[in-house]
Amino acid sequence: METLRWRTGRLELIDQRRLPLEFEYVACTDALQTAAAIRDMVVRGAPAIGCTAAYGVALEAQRHAGAARAQFDTALQAAFRVLAASRPTAVNLFWAIERMRQCQVQTRSGSTRAAADAMLELAHAMRSDDIEICRAIGRNGAPLIAQGARVMTHCNAGALATAGHGTALGVIRSARDAGKRISVIANETRPYLQGARLTAWEMVQENIPVTLVTDNMAGHLMQLGRVDVVVVGADRIAVNGDTANKIGTYTVAVLAERHRIPFYVAAPLSTIDIAIAEGSAIPIEERDPAEVTGFRGLHWAPEGVEVANPAFDVTPAALITGIITERGVIMQPDAKQIRALFEN
Amino acid sequence: METLRWRTGRLELIDQRRLPLEFEYVACTDALQTAAAIRDMVVRGAPAIGCTAAYGVALEAQRHAGAARAQFDTALQAAFRVLAASRPTAVNLFWAIERMRQCQVQTRSGSTRAAADAMLELAHAMRSDDIEICRAIGRNGAPLIAQGARVMTHCNAGALATAGHGTALGVIRSARDAGKRISVIANETRPYLQGARLTAWEMVQENIPVTLVTDNMAGHLMQLGRVDVVVVGADRIAVNGDTANKIGTYTVAVLAERHRIPFYVAAPLSTIDIAIAEGSAIPIEERDPAEVTGFRGLHWAPEGVEVANPAFDVTPAALITGIITERGVIMQPDAKQIRALFEN
Repeated sequence: METLRWRTGRLELIDQRRLPLEFEYVACTDALQTAAAIRDMVVRGAPAIGCTAAYGVALEAQRHAGAARAQFDTALQAAFRVLAASRPTAVNLFWAIERMRQCQVQTRSGSTRAAADAMLELAHAMRSDDIEICRAIGRNGAPLIAQGARVMTHCNAGALATAGHGTALGVIRSARDAGKRISVIANETRPYLQGARLTAWEMVQENIPVTLVTDNMAGHLMQLGRVDVVVVGADRIAVNGDTANKIGTYTVAVLAERHRIPFYVAAPLSTIDIAIAEGSAIPIEERDPAEVTGFRGLHWAPEGVEVANPAFDVTPAALITGIITERGVIMQPDAKQIRALFEN
Repeated sequence: METLRWRTGRLELIDQRRLPLEFEYVACTDALQTAAAIRDMVVRGAPAIGCTAAYGVALEAQRHAGAARAQFDTALQAAFRVLAASRPTAVNLFWAIERMRQCQVQTRSGSTRAAADAMLELAHAMRSDDIEICRAIGRNGAPLIAQGARVMTHCNAGALATAGHGTALGVIRSARDAGKRISVIANETRPYLQGARLTAWEMVQENIPVTLVTDNMAGHLMQLGRVDVVVVGADRIAVNGDTANKIGTYTVAVLAERHRIPFYVAAPLSTIDIAIAEGSAIPIEERDPAEVTGFRGLHWAPEGVEVANPAFDVTPAALITGIITERGVIMQPDAKQIRALFEN
C-alpha cells in the first residue's frame, strides 16, 4: 500500500476520505490540486502532508520546465504560497516547502528543465526517506512496548499518515515484527474519525488485534487497567517538547498521567519546529463546523447551534514520557535534549 | 414539551432516537412495549426511565384490572421482570419498580380494579413529583453558577432525561431564570450523541447560547480557560458518592480536577443507591457494537474490528465538588453526608 505515489507525470494519493469503505487513488497534476487535496484531507498526517507538498511543488516545476526562468520562478512562488496556505498546524508542510525552495535556489544556474528534474528527484527522495525514517522510529520505539502490551493510540499516525510504515503505528508494527503479541485500542477520533476509519483499517489489514472505542471511553479503560501504554503521532513539536497533535491527544495524556501509563509521541525530526519555544505558539487550525454537526451526508445537530472545531490541541512536555524519533528516544523531553538532536 | 405523558389509556413518549430531526410521540400500551422503549432508548435518562417504568407497570395493571387476583399478580410479576431487565445501570428504574411493587402489596385487600387505579395514580404522582424535584434541584444548584459562567455538560441530563426541567440542565435553566447570562458547552457524547442531538436542541429551544463540541475537545477548552464549571447528571450514585454517569463523564471529571474547575453532579435522591457502598459495584451496561462503528444507517469502521461499548463510567467521589439534590447540595460528598440526607 502506497499512501502517495508518482505515476507518469502525476501524483496519486489514496483518497483517505473514502476509507475504509472504498480504496481508490485520486490524481493531482498541479500545485493547486495538490493544495486542495491537503486542505480537503484526501491526504492527512504531518509526514504525508510534507511529502505531498513536495510533490505539489515538483508538479508545478514540471509543468513549467523549459519556460523562461522568470516565469518558472513565478509559478513556483505561487505553488509555495498555495501549498503553505493549505493547512496551518503540521510543520512538515512548511519544512517540505522550504526544502523545495532551497532546491530551487541551488539549481538557479542551470536550465529550468534541469531544475524541475532536480525538484522531482528531491520529492522522490523525501518520500523514500520518510519511509526509512518511519522504520527507524519503529526500531527505536519497539523496545518501549512490552510483550503482550495493550497499546492505545489516538487518530491515525500510521502508514496512511506518512509515506509508509507510520510513526506511532510504525512503532506498533515494529514491535509486532519483533515478536511481541500486542493489541491496539484505537480511539475513534471525532470529528473526522481517523481512528475508526484509518487506524482500525490499517490494524485489521496487518492482523494486529484492534479494539475500536469512542474517544470518551479512554479514561474508563485506563481506570479498569486495560491500557498499558499510549503512543501517538505529532503535527508539530515545539523545542521544549510541547506537542501539537490531533484534538483529544491532550485529554489522553492527562488521563495517562493520572493512571501512571507511559505516554509516547512518535515523530520524525521534521515535525520538530525549533523556531517555536513552546506549544502555546503553535497555530491551531479551526475547521468547518459541519464536521462536528454530522458526518458525511448525515447531520444530527439542531439548527442554530454554535460549534467549536479546533483540529489539534497541545500536550505539554511534562505529560510526555518520551519522544521517539529516527535518531533515538528523548525521555522526559526538554529544549536541551531536543536541540542536541539537531546538532548531531 | 412533555417527555412522557398519559393519554387515554396509553403512555406516550417523545421518540428521542429521532431528535432533533423529527419530533414525534410513540405510544406504549403494555409493559413489554414500555420495556422495549427503554431498551431501545426511545426514552433515556435515569429519572425519565424511572417514570416510564412506573407507567409500564401501571399499563399492565390496567390491562388486567378486573381479573382475578392471582392472574393480576402474575401479570404484574412478569411486568416487573421485563422492565427490570430493560437496562441495568440507572437505579431509578429499580427504585420505580419497587415503589409499584409496594403499591401492589398495599392494595392487595381491595379489588384488582382499585389496585390498578392506585398504581396509575402512583405513576402520575411519580411523574409530577419528578418535575417538582427537578425544580428543587435547579433552585439548589443555581447559586453555584456564577454570572456569565460558561457551563460544560456531558450527555443530556435535561428535560428529556426527566419528566421535565432536567437535573444538570435544570440547574442551568434555573440559573438563567435567576437572571444569569450563562452559556453552555455541550459535549456531543458519542456514541449515541445525546449532547449533540438532545442537549443542544433543548438549549436552542430555550435560547440559551450553546456551543457543541466533540468529546475530545473538553480538555483543550479547559486548557484555554474557556470552561468555568461542569454540571452533569447521574445514573446511579453509590453511598460514598461515587457516580455512574454516561461514558466520558469520568474523563471530564479528571480534566476538571487538573484545571481546578468545579465539577457538580445534579441528581434526585432516587438516583442514590444506598445499598451500594462504592462505584466499582455499579453494573455497567455494555451496548451494541454497531453504536460505535457508525451512527444510524451510516457505518464507517472496517469489517473485522473489535469494539468496546460501555455505556457508563464511574467518577470517584474525590473528583466531585458537590452533588446537587432536591434536599440541598452535598459538598465533598461522602457516605456520612449521603446517609444523613435519607434520615431527614
